[in-house]
Amino acid sequence: MKTFLMLHGANHNMYGKRDPAQYGTLTLEQIDAKVQALAEELGVKLERFHSNMEGEVCERIHKALNDGIDGVLFNPGAWTHYSIAIRDALEMLTAPVIEIHMSNIYAREPWRHHSVFSAIVKGQICGLGLDSYLLGLRAVVSAANQ
Amino acid sequence: MKTFLMLHGANHNMYGKRDPAQYGTLTLEQIDAKVQALAEELGVKLERFHSNMEGEVCERIHKALNDGIDGVLFNPGAWTHYSIAIRDALEMLTAPVIEIHMSNIYAREPWRHHSVFSAIVKGQICGLGLDSYLLGLRAVVSAANQ
Amino acid sequence: MKTFLMLHGANHNMYGKRDPAQYGTLTLEQIDAKVQALAEELGVKLERFHSNMEGEVCERIHKALNDGIDGVLFNPGAWTHYSIAIRDALEMLTAPVIEIHMSNIYAREPWRHHSVFSAIVKGQICGLGLDSYLLGLRAVVSAANQ
Amino acid sequence: MKTFLMLHGANHNMYGKRDPAQYGTLTLEQIDAKVQALAEELGVKLERFHSNMEGEVCERIHKALNDGIDGVLFNPGAWTHYSIAIRDALEMLTAPVIEIHMSNIYAREPWRHHSVFSAIVKGQICGLGLDSYLLGLRAVVSAANQ
Amino acid sequence: MKTFLMLHGANHNMYGKRDPAQYGTLTLEQIDAKVQALAEELGVKLERFHSNMEGEVCERIHKALNDGIDGVLFNPGAWTHYSIAIRDALEMLTAPVIEIHMSNIYAREPWRHHSVFSAIVKGQICGLGLDSYLLGLRAVVSAANQ
Amino acid sequence: MKTFLMLHGANHNMYGKRDPAQYGTLTLEQIDAKVQALAEELGVKLERFHSNMEGEVCERIHKALNDGIDGVLFNPGAWTHYSIAIRDALEMLTAPVIEIHMSNIYAREPWRHHSVFSAIVKGQICGLGLDSYLLGLRAVVSAANQ
Amino acid sequence: MKTFLMLHGANHNMYGKRDPAQYGTLTLEQIDAKVQALAEELGVKLERFHSNMEGEVCERIHKALNDGIDGVLFNPGAWTHYSIAIRDALEMLTAPVIEIHMSNIYAREPWRHHSVFSAIVKGQICGLGLDSYLLGLRAVVSAANQ
Amino acid sequence: MKTFLMLHGANHNMYGKRDPAQYGTLTLEQIDAKVQALAEELGVKLERFHSNMEGEVCERIHKALNDGIDGVLFNPGAWTHYSIAIRDALEMLTAPVIEIHMSNIYAREPWRHHSVFSAIVKGQICGLGLDSYLLGLRAVVSAANQ
Amino acid sequence: MKTFLMLHGANHNMYGKRDPAQYGTLTLEQIDAKVQALAEELGVKLERFHSNMEGEVCERIHKALNDGIDGVLFNPGAWTHYSIAIRDALEMLTAPVIEIHMSNIYAREPWRHHSVFSAIVKGQICGLGLDSYLLGLRAVVSAANQ
Amino acid sequence: MKTFLMLHGANHNMYGKRDPAQYGTLTLEQIDAKVQALAEELGVKLERFHSNMEGEVCERIHKALNDGIDGVLFNPGAWTHYSIAIRDALEMLTAPVIEIHMSNIYAREPWRHHSVFSAIVKGQICGLGLDSYLLGLRAVVSAANQ
Amino acid sequence: MKTFLMLHGANHNMYGKRDPAQYGTLTLEQIDAKVQALAEELGVKLERFHSNMEGEVCERIHKALNDGIDGVLFNPGAWTHYSIAIRDALEMLTAPVIEIHMSNIYAREPWRHHSVFSAIVKGQICGLGLDSYLLGLRAVVSAANQ
Amino acid sequence: MKTFLMLHGANHNMYGKRDPAQYGTLTLEQIDAKVQALAEELGVKLERFHSNMEGEVCERIHKALNDGIDGVLFNPGAWTHYSIAIRDALEMLTAPVIEIHMSNIYAREPWRHHSVFSAIVKGQICGLGLDSYLLGLRAVVSAANQ
Repeated sequence: MKTFLMLHGANHNMYGKRDPAQYGTLTLEQIDAKVQALAEELGVKLERFHSNMEGEVCERIHKALNDGIDGVLFNPGAWTHYSIAIRDALEMLTAPVIEIHMSNIYAREPWRHHSVFSAIVKGQICGLGLDSYLLGLRAVVSAANQ
Repeated sequence: MKTFLMLHGANHNMYGKRDPAQYGTLTLEQIDAKVQALAEELGVKLERFHSNMEGEVCERIHKALNDGIDGVLFNPGAWTHYSIAIRDALEMLTAPVIEIHMSNIYAREPWRHHSVFSAIVKGQICGLGLDSYLLGLRAVVSAANQ
Repeated sequence: MKTFLMLHGANHNMYGKRDPAQYGTLTLEQIDAKVQALAEELGVKLERFHSNMEGEVCERIHKALNDGIDGVLFNPGAWTHYSIAIRDALEMLTAPVIEIHMSNIYAREPWRHHSVFSAIVKGQICGLGLDSYLLGLRAVVSAANQ
Repeated sequence: MKTFLMLHGANHNMYGKRDPAQYGTLTLEQIDAKVQALAEELGVKLERFHSNMEGEVCERIHKALNDGIDGVLFNPGAWTHYSIAIRDALEMLTAPVIEIHMSNIYAREPWRHHSVFSAIVKGQICGLGLDSYLLGLRAVVSAANQ
Repeated sequence: MKTFLMLHGANHNMYGKRDPAQYGTLTLEQIDAKVQALAEELGVKLERFHSNMEGEVCERIHKALNDGIDGVLFNPGAWTHYSIAIRDALEMLTAPVIEIHMSNIYAREPWRHHSVFSAIVKGQICGLGLDSYLLGLRAVVSAANQ
Repeated sequence: MKTFLMLHGANHNMYGKRDPAQYGTLTLEQIDAKVQALAEELGVKLERFHSNMEGEVCERIHKALNDGIDGVLFNPGAWTHYSIAIRDALEMLTAPVIEIHMSNIYAREPWRHHSVFSAIVKGQICGLGLDSYLLGLRAVVSAANQ
Repeated sequence: MKTFLMLHGANHNMYGKRDPAQYGTLTLEQIDAKVQALAEELGVKLERFHSNMEGEVCERIHKALNDGIDGVLFNPGAWTHYSIAIRDALEMLTAPVIEIHMSNIYAREPWRHHSVFSAIVKGQICGLGLDSYLLGLRAVVSAANQ
Repeated sequence: MKTFLMLHGANHNMYGKRDPAQYGTLTLEQIDAKVQALAEELGVKLERFHSNMEGEVCERIHKALNDGIDGVLFNPGAWTHYSIAIRDALEMLTAPVIEIHMSNIYAREPWRHHSVFSAIVKGQICGLGLDSYLLGLRAVVSAANQ
Repeated sequence: MKTFLMLHGANHNMYGKRDPAQYGTLTLEQIDAKVQALAEELGVKLERFHSNMEGEVCERIHKALNDGIDGVLFNPGAWTHYSIAIRDALEMLTAPVIEIHMSNIYAREPWRHHSVFSAIVKGQICGLGLDSYLLGLRAVVSAANQ
Repeated sequence: MKTFLMLHGANHNMYGKRDPAQYGTLTLEQIDAKVQALAEELGVKLERFHSNMEGEVCERIHKALNDGIDGVLFNPGAWTHYSIAIRDALEMLTAPVIEIHMSNIYAREPWRHHSVFSAIVKGQICGLGLDSYLLGLRAVVSAANQ
Repeated sequence: MKTFLMLHGANHNMYGKRDPAQYGTLTLEQIDAKVQALAEELGVKLERFHSNMEGEVCERIHKALNDGIDGVLFNPGAWTHYSIAIRDALEMLTAPVIEIHMSNIYAREPWRHHSVFSAIVKGQICGLGLDSYLLGLRAVVSAANQ
Repeated sequence: MKTFLMLHGANHNMYGKRDPAQYGTLTLEQIDAKVQALAEELGVKLERFHSNMEGEVCERIHKALNDGIDGVLFNPGAWTHYSIAIRDALEMLTAPVIEIHMSNIYAREPWRHHSVFSAIVKGQICGLGLDSYLLGLRAVVSAANQ
């Protein structure tokens, strides 16, 4: 059975209390449950990690590299635009990484249009709310099977 | 039964003969068949249109606006970077549009990083080859149901 | 009796169905009728042409050059921002060209502020809806008489 | 009877002595007379004001705001490119403002292509010499009637 | 009695040892005491928080959002220029935020002129040393009373 | 008793009639009275000057330099973005200058984000409406006492 | 016997009527005849194609890819500066492509200095009028023989 | 006997009180006297004008154009960097204009490196203090004699 | 005996597992041992610190400032490009800082060419793998002796 | 018999030892011989000059201007991107200059895309290796005969 | 008796044969004679040096530094825009340097507007033909006497 | 015994007389002696070359390529910022090149931050005065042994 890692970025513990026009009304726990359900449906094991600390996310990626992982589903949140440290950590992985965003970052402020991750990931999905997570899981599982 | 329109951009009739590192080895007909199969599985009607003429794509979108459509799945190809005419046509629609790319446009030449469509679509999926089409269809169907 | 050519750009056949805040509620046929009426009032002959195909617009301008024309009234629409081909075609004419826009392109997205035509036309009128057409006709007739 | 204000910008008292390729050979008085004649033809009252002092133009606009005005026809001249003070004054008005230029500012030096006013006016007309004034008056009268 | 939160950014625990030309000679504790005294004078409750960890600042803001807060007084220090994570956290608040800087950031290196926070705060005060804190508290209390 | 100068910039005589979302509903006279009252409370003498003429503001600053002044409170309005003449005049002073804005200039159009004054003033306060004036007076008095 | 394709871009059917300072006085038919004569002298077969439709040029290149071709001589005209669609079509070819321009595009307007094709062609020749065609044919034939 | 006009820009009435590192210790009257003495030595008539009002400088130039003038010696001061109005006024003259600066504007802040006048003047002299005036007078007299 | 601090940046605990073309095959412990050996050879005391947390690095620098240090050898890793917080912490030190990189950051992606530290350090060494550390130690020891 | 000058730029004496992917395997002497042979075939006299000294190339061009020359074939090598001195020398000539490059400079590093010569030459040929020289000679001879 | 050095830049030996609209019709020898005559009139010794070799100019400046010099009059010609080597050489001098240009470099191509020397010279004179030399000598002699 | 080449750039013969804050007080001969001593200590042969002529440096590198060399230690001086000719010469070498600077070029004027060499060298060392040379020699010797 393949194992995947879902990484949640800064402030994502506030989902449900944050601007619902961009992020919907589901809490992080509710999102986790729905993605977990799809993981079971697809027959894969899904680990999840959230931290508001950039360094803890780097170290979780280091652990994945050491333990072995079949793919990463990553919603970098605010770090999208400046965390070279997480980028460098992800770039060490050979497993596919799918970058997702609940909002359409290209329809927001200009400085949100650029992601420091997009050049090193397998693919990117944005603008679809919960579906960004669900389709992202499908994408990373499919990529791991190629 | 809801109806969706899949639009293929310039040069896409050459899929299968074009750089397989970016676009895979499937022909456009084979891609069409796989997306059509998923459409049937999801219980939706899927129309498809391809042209190498920018104006014909505009007019196909006009037709969709006149006839009514529940969503558009669009791979703009080379037009991603300059066709304001198609952008203006799409912007008239109230139905959701999902922009897809087989390759990860953010990992290619810098001028391919900017899409004239991304600010007006519901969401964008890129880098996943055939999965960009399949997940794109799931995305537009889901968006039409919200 | 002098002869003028009115050229409509991409998507203009959708006037009346398109964003009324920018483009009003008149259809292209209704606009044509009003401009035609003013042409009669001013005692000039007015030909009109619309296409969503950039190449057909070029060829219509070639025809005008070959047949002779006293002036051109041009609403380039989306092509405003990138059609060097139409620019090159217009630049061959010695008759005056008036560029018009129904919306105020300088009060919209920044990339709409630049026109590839404005440096080669006699004058530009924008932001006045139907009046952009009517005053544009007055302008080109007046320019042809100087 | 509606009342309109025609504002002339810096150096416009020199019309007739200034580069005739850009500005023609009419004096400011001759231009005033022709616009006045059209105002009478259109059945509107036209006030005019000229100053080489930025602050006096601001204060004339303040007066128009206090007294009430149905529209403004403004040729900002050199101030086109930097007078935020006049822009801020005009932005207070709810009546339509039409910006005009005798020369085609987009066919001159690059720094003349940008107007600090164009984003807040109803419409812009340029390149038509005296016709910029005459069509501008038609435009502002028409806008005031909508 | 209204409650306010004063947030100190990275390296602020070093006040008193840091470049006195920019930051004065008071320690963070001395600054805290003076702001606290003013809070008492103004009849408001003032909580304070300092961390050199971006993530801890985000989580303190999450706590304020959960507990309720009447306003935030924030000196972001070095994070001024890049911490989108803290910006996203602050943007969730509906209470007013006042951004302060002891030094005049616009009179220092060019890259210090841009704050990622300034577009989302109620107001900004800079260059006044301890007075930036004291006037900032007055400002946020006043804003909370409007 | 120390003496301070409060300078009002272009269009500020229109306060109360201007966009209340940015500038509130108080007239310039009402603002003057409130700042004057605080001056009395703080035990300082406050002179005030308003002109829509850039040159008159320069000359008022020359007078302050000749007569002696303990500090300047300046709301430059539209001149914020281009009046190098006033900047050069202010730069001659050794007394502290506090730049204030009623609106948050960093949350408005991008070209309003840059002030030609900010690099030469002691400090800047913005976004706080009337409080920008009141806190500005406190700031300049405090700076004059250091 | 090797076969080559000569592609003429937008507006090239107007050669002879277009600005002779840049494009000379020969018609497209006269140019074709002279290049054809050189082809015979060099012992190669030369096909030619002209269209003002971007999409038709793409499809002619697709045909060349399907049929096999030994090299392409391409004068993109106005498309030089924006037709990513034709670029993407040409990039599929493994045969050498020579880009030619009759005028020296680097001595004209700045925006004419950049070609979207130049990074993917074998070589570029410009500024030589008819000689650009004749030397271009020699170049592509020579390249095909290496 | 030829007649020349010396124009002093904004704030120049403060010479002698202004930063002596850039502007020396002479007052404007002392500078005037020294330039006048050289004018007499060179056998020319020298008129001088100073104003802190941009519009008054424009009108003085209009007067020179109407009365006739043999050359202009202009120190634009702060207007160097933004007064298009004065530029447009000067551009009407056919007599030579010499632009001078007491300080070396290219060794100061970057935004002082660009003059809106330099492209339309005969020549520019900067960095030489009083000598900028004296050599400037020699230059304009010499130019008027060619 | 002088004391120096060696600071390792984000992700450096992964040396040996990371892209060997850029970072070699030595682990962080192996690098530490080799630098420690050279420190002994040079007769200096070397402390080392590594964290993936930006804030912990700031606080370690604060400690060095409080305890006294003779120099710092710093490989900032990913933080090179954005950590103003660490820059501000380092800038407080009067002891020399040497910035090192194992890879040649100027031969990699353009955004890696800019370091936020380089303007405040004594010197920079890059591109030499382990030698960057060894020569960096020699450099900081030598600088501390000057 | 007409006389032409072939100028070789910096480092060209190393042809044959330099990156063969860009410059081929022929030595400069071998290239000279082949171009000389074509010159004889075309019935023209060809002088050649090579130097690694910018000043010597300028002086060789001065000599050509003094002696008279019918055209120049110039491969500027590294000077392409910065030698304004050679540009100024060439610009004095009225005879046609053809700029050639063995490699396709537009398919290399971005800073190689700009030539300081291209705006003043008759035409440019690049990317064709030895053929760049041979076709360049044909071009300059043809241009000299027009 | 004071000694000055006049340095002529690249291509200046061609004065008299070069574009007379920019450089006049005098030869370098004739210019030298006129400047020499003025030097005698002013009672100073004038050495002159010309080379087309950047390195020889550097070494001539080294010699001046070693021998002692009272001032330098420098017309850098094409080197104005790129010769950092000569800039670095000149920057070693403590004697005043006056930079001159016969043409008005600010009225020519945009890339001619920037001089690498202007930030380190005492003053700059341009646009005055021979007078640039004569006034430049007066300027450097005057500066040496201050 | 391995052989290395030390190249000194423009103006370096003036070391000891040049700005000691940036370059120290040692003469070039003294630097040479110290580097030579280290070379002997390290058991390698060191050749040295200095010229103020760009072309002579190119030719010295050509000689090194022809004769064989084990590494190059290069202080390009002013050429750092523009000599593509020397860059192209160095790029031909397969032996490692170490670029050194005595001053920290990243802490000086912005245009000194960019080196045309840094992308093609093995490593770069700057800011360390004489140590830049000594550590540079260690670096190139170490690189040659890998």
